[in-house]
Amino acid sequence: MAAETNSKSDTLTLEKVREALIKQEDTIIYRLIQRANFPLNSPAYDEKAFPSFSGSLLQFVVKETEALQSKVGRYENPEELPFSPESLPPSLLPPPENPPVLHPAAASININGKIWDFYFDELLPLFAATGDDGSYASTASNDLDCLQAISRRIHYGYYVAEVKFKDSPQDYEPAIRAQDREGLMKLLTFVDVEEKVKKRVEKKAMVFGQEVSLMDNANTRTDQRNVSETYKVDPLVVSRLYGEWIMPLTKLVQVEYLLRRLD
Amino acid sequence: MAAETNSKSDTLTLEKVREALIKQEDTIIYRLIQRANFPLNSPAYDEKAFPSFSGSLLQFVVKETEALQSKVGRYENPEELPFSPESLPPSLLPPPENPPVLHPAAASININGKIWDFYFDELLPLFAATGDDGSYASTASNDLDCLQAISRRIHYGYYVAEVKFKDSPQDYEPAIRAQDREGLMKLLTFVDVEEKVKKRVEKKAMVFGQEVSLMDNANTRTDQRNVSETYKVDPLVVSRLYGEWIMPLTKLVQVEYLLRRLD
Repeated sequence: MAAETNSKSDTLTLEKVREALIKQEDTIIYRLIQRANFPLNSPAYDEKAFPSFSGSLLQFVVKETEALQSKVGRYENPEELPFSPESLPPSLLPPPENPPVLHPAAASININGKIWDFYFDELLPLFAATGDDGSYASTASNDLDCLQAISRRIHYGYYVAEVKFKDSPQDYEPAIRAQDREGLMKLLTFVDVEEKVKKRVEKKAMVFGQEVSLMDNANTRTDQRNVSETYKVDPLVVSRLYGEWIMPLTKLVQVEYLLRRLD
Repeated sequence: MAAETNSKSDTLTLEKVREALIKQEDTIIYRLIQRANFPLNSPAYDEKAFPSFSGSLLQFVVKETEALQSKVGRYENPEELPFSPESLPPSLLPPPENPPVLHPAAASININGKIWDFYFDELLPLFAATGDDGSYASTASNDLDCLQAISRRIHYGYYVAEVKFKDSPQDYEPAIRAQDREGLMKLLTFVDVEEKVKKRVEKKAMVFGQEVSLMDNANTRTDQRNVSETYKVDPLVVSRLYGEWIMPLTKLVQVEYLLRRLD
């Protein structure tokens, strides 16, 4: 049935994991740009705005969408984690054929609660305009798209940790045996790499978030740092998303995974 | 509740309709790029691949997603039309507050059947690589995202027709009274505008579909016509999507709408 198999499943290499992470940057940025088409639309988040729902419109959309996605096997992938995990229906698809590459510990790590909080409390107000255009359902659905792309990227930390551990277990085993969080965090931190990632996503936000018309020479704009108001999402917000939340939380996932890696 | 109201609802102008259409180009291109992350994945379309579903996985995803979206009011917007309209649940949200701006005839025009056919039979093979990576559910969900963006764009023809008719009814009334399809099609065809749209979406596909890295000077690529293999979706395919399908079908929607406009 499969001409090419899922790239994760055969041999996990740091190269492949990095490629996946870089590709996911594009997805995250495209989705932020889509969400930025709508203003804040706060009634979507108000538990009292629509009496037909027991919670907010957002909560309804998240719960129902995740239930549907669960039926088509989304949560059979270890890096896909639900935001509304209560009573998800089982998958109707056959289980994945590939042998698992992660330690079973991965299944016990889900930091979607933290992701939900920073997304709505801190990130969203930085890139969605104030206001209300009435498009609450589209807004909620775009929020879930953003949340899922960010969550997948952060929980991909399982694979980063697994491949790093497999490549040089001797580097990690002492800290794991000592259950030394701080030591593990140090081993996983490369400031220069993180700076490069922040620069790259900023550049991607400039390129993908340009207003393109036939009149102007749109492609010169990435050289001008003082025109951020012409981008659909401020490139510095994307850089900050990575620097303040995505990379630290990916490392948190890695640390939690490694702490259980020898269990 | 609404600080700003939905821009369609107050005064419909050709300017506003055009702005909306141009914005929708970006959405369509971002979604095509997202779909192009996956190969064709033909088992998603095979009615016999998964015995748990009565049809294909795609049909299941479309039907269930549209049912959920219907509950949150998607199909209260005249330009949003379901691909699986049988037994959709009613909206749980209060009806839109704004008075309708379209003639009721709009409700009888749905060309999603044609859109479905050209998308799967002709467009998809032009931009999705052959192969199978097992991600059938994501593939189906990305297909629906593309279909919905394209359908919304084409059925926005209602507004184009309404605003053109309102601006100069005397130009259209004779052809409408004569039920002269060809005459209406001629009135709605502006070859130079269509060429401009094709050029613009081609340029957008170049800009948004670049591979961006810190090494190269990504933003110079839009000047080079011979590097289409480095774009996530071939810009000429996007130009063709507009020239062969989106613009002709938008005009078809306009003609059908105008033919009923005096009823």
